[in-house]
Amino acid sequence: MIKHFLALANFSPSEIGAFVDRAYSFSLLKKSPDKINHLLKNKIFSNAFFEASTRTRSSFEIAAKRLGAEIVNFSPENSSTKKGETVFDTLRCLENLGVDGIILRHSDNTLINELAPKLSTTLINAGAGKFEHPSQGLLDLLTLKKEFGEIKGLRVGICGDILHSRVAGSMMVAAKKLGFEVILMGPENLIPKNDFKYQDFDKTLPSLDAVMMLRIQHERHEGIFLSQSDYRQAFGMTKERVEKLADHTIIMHPGPFNRGVEIDDEAIEHKQSRIWQQMENGVYARMSILEWASGV
Amino acid sequence: MIKHFLALANFSPSEIGAFVDRAYSFSLLKKSPDKINHLLKNKIFSNAFFEASTRTRSSFEIAAKRLGAEIVNFSPENSSTKKGETVFDTLRCLENLGVDGIILRHSDNTLINELAPKLSTTLINAGAGKFEHPSQGLLDLLTLKKEFGEIKGLRVGICGDILHSRVAGSMMVAAKKLGFEVILMGPENLIPKNDFKYQDFDKTLPSLDAVMMLRIQHERHEGIFLSQSDYRQAFGMTKERVEKLADHTIIMHPGPFNRGVEIDDEAIEHKQSRIWQQMENGVYARMSILEWASGV
Amino acid sequence: MIKHFLALANFSPSEIGAFVDRAYSFSLLKKSPDKINHLLKNKIFSNAFFEASTRTRSSFEIAAKRLGAEIVNFSPENSSTKKGETVFDTLRCLENLGVDGIILRHSDNTLINELAPKLSTTLINAGAGKFEHPSQGLLDLLTLKKEFGEIKGLRVGICGDILHSRVAGSMMVAAKKLGFEVILMGPENLIPKNDFKYQDFDKTLPSLDAVMMLRIQHERHEGIFLSQSDYRQAFGMTKERVEKLADHTIIMHPGPFNRGVEIDDEAIEHKQSRIWQQMENGVYARMSILEWASGV
Repeated sequence: MIKHFLALANFSPSEIGAFVDRAYSFSLLKKSPDKINHLLKNKIFSNAFFEASTRTRSSFEIAAKRLGAEIVNFSPENSSTKKGETVFDTLRCLENLGVDGIILRHSDNTLINELAPKLSTTLINAGAGKFEHPSQGLLDLLTLKKEFGEIKGLRVGICGDILHSRVAGSMMVAAKKLGFEVILMGPENLIPKNDFKYQDFDKTLPSLDAVMMLRIQHERHEGIFLSQSDYRQAFGMTKERVEKLADHTIIMHPGPFNRGVEIDDEAIEHKQSRIWQQMENGVYARMSILEWASGV
Repeated sequence: MIKHFLALANFSPSEIGAFVDRAYSFSLLKKSPDKINHLLKNKIFSNAFFEASTRTRSSFEIAAKRLGAEIVNFSPENSSTKKGETVFDTLRCLENLGVDGIILRHSDNTLINELAPKLSTTLINAGAGKFEHPSQGLLDLLTLKKEFGEIKGLRVGICGDILHSRVAGSMMVAAKKLGFEVILMGPENLIPKNDFKYQDFDKTLPSLDAVMMLRIQHERHEGIFLSQSDYRQAFGMTKERVEKLADHTIIMHPGPFNRGVEIDDEAIEHKQSRIWQQMENGVYARMSILEWASGV
Repeated sequence: MIKHFLALANFSPSEIGAFVDRAYSFSLLKKSPDKINHLLKNKIFSNAFFEASTRTRSSFEIAAKRLGAEIVNFSPENSSTKKGETVFDTLRCLENLGVDGIILRHSDNTLINELAPKLSTTLINAGAGKFEHPSQGLLDLLTLKKEFGEIKGLRVGICGDILHSRVAGSMMVAAKKLGFEVILMGPENLIPKNDFKYQDFDKTLPSLDAVMMLRIQHERHEGIFLSQSDYRQAFGMTKERVEKLADHTIIMHPGPFNRGVEIDDEAIEHKQSRIWQQMENGVYARMSILEWASGV
């Protein structure tokens, strides 16, 4: 039975906890590369990104290399995708070339779940449409854990284009699994109808442990309704709003940002921002995934 | 004297046999990576692909990495090719950067043969226009050898766009060198005039040991004459035709496929299909080439 | 305090000399890869090229790999640059992913100097607009040193589009630092106004120790004034001009060339050409930079 890493929804709370704990332990070995640089020796993963990426692609690649594994990068623009080869056939090809796992990013919401059962190598979801982005979920959980020690019971606000956000998708799943609160904020037409609370941004902010700001996913929908300055005014983490946060509240953002729209420079660089640490934590989270995928 | 890997036509039957045998031995070490992961230590190859590729590029890269070598990927779209640098000057540059071999794919039929004598690093043909694709030839021979033990005397049918196929080009060369039969099948205007037999597809199928299906190389010619459904009817490996194969006949295809055109899903996944094994065998074949190129 | 490699202008003569000497020592170890392949173990650099490159990108990658370091390639075309992420945020991301240095090429003249102080990982200039190209400068110095033993006092002519050339930019800086002469030659409207001598090409040629030919940087300005044949006639290193060089004069060119425009085939392949050696020397120069950046 091949194991896949498709969605946090597929894992039990203790399994998710184990990923976060392992990622945490990798973070402690940051200065001891020789302790980990052989763990995935002889393993080769394929980075198969059908959508643009800086953070996720690079951090999977760095995670692999820090553990002694190799990465073969696949890009649709110079591949047989140009000759009409399907995603499925591309993955079957990589599988048969003997890779130990395929890290897939694709704009489709459901394709990854359709493909996984047909593959005999581990498939790792590096972002699937607006479905889930589970490695981002793990790095967000690691960020919360490093900050607060205990994730359970935290109060996490997410503000922005939640409807099109796979990052929010994975956080909402994690909230139910791990027992923390998620509060949705932002433009009403970008909020999914589900059983999470939808609350006013400014009224909610002072009560949060963490606030995650999201970029408008322009590439996933048409028509914006607010000008950038109106958006910032209503839903941006402005320097004014930063001052209203409780002292212990941390600011998160999965990146990339639109500076001056959903988040101001001052918020990104604020002492309560954990945005850059999230990127670092992404490497540790992906190490834990690759190690798990390798079954070592 | 620099040695190059340009065409099966340049090697003797025993040299071709040695490549296949070495590839076969690598296939037996699949589960013992530590036995081979140091063989090409300190070697660096360049993947210089001026045409799109998934299988060939990735399998050369994986072959190199499994043997402990490094690959530097070159892509024309973000290189000095954009400033007008010629292929020759690009290869001379890579040569002078000290790579141990250049793996070249290019749409030109003859360029590789013109360039090789001017280079002082090993040039490896990863697909040259409609001339030869010798590493594919080796993997096809390995597939036949693993299946039948002895390649000599086999009866191999190739069906499709043979005129534009470098895969067929290498197989026809191999047939003469190694003493197996190749029978050409498919649309008459896509069959080269040479001394191989051209026979009716359906009449020939039941007598074959292996049948290799080819994709129409839309990128190499204009105008198709048959609709996809008419092509499938006349020259496709349909599920009906699979049932007419002898029990020992294997189905081959170099990929990528047009499912439902030259080959049906049922044929790809049929127990007599060796299509996915061909991809795996490609890694072993390319290991044997890289090792030979390294002279170790 | 983070150290950056932005411009030869930032280094003292003895520091520049140390880079060249270290590069020279790497060149002597060409046949002894095992002596250097562990020096940068556990180091990961990012190749962040926002402009096309063959020589520089590949030689940084090969330099890293020969020293046991890893390279993560970043390309704007399949990154979050497409979602509007700025260069600064891209570099901050790579920094937070934990890379040991970022190798940046960008068309902007000043951006790299603005970004460096904001980063906490080493930034390496791999070509900045028409500002400086300091790793090219080092390889040119290494080429002179290998040829003449002593760089001080040499008489080096540069001919062509000096106004838009970062290669010339770094050579002019080096000349002042190390005490050799640079003479500018070429079309008057492509010569910067500075305190280097501007002299007639043909009159100056016989007196030079080295002559560096430059490509017209079509991508950096509009409108050419001379036809290609008129340019060659006036400012090309034609086979006729090669014959007028002193026996000890070496021909240099940073590449890529426009053969038959600023340089003839006969000059590129002439026994006094060091053009291909420059490329080889580029690997050694970049090894010295990466080693320095790693602080090992």
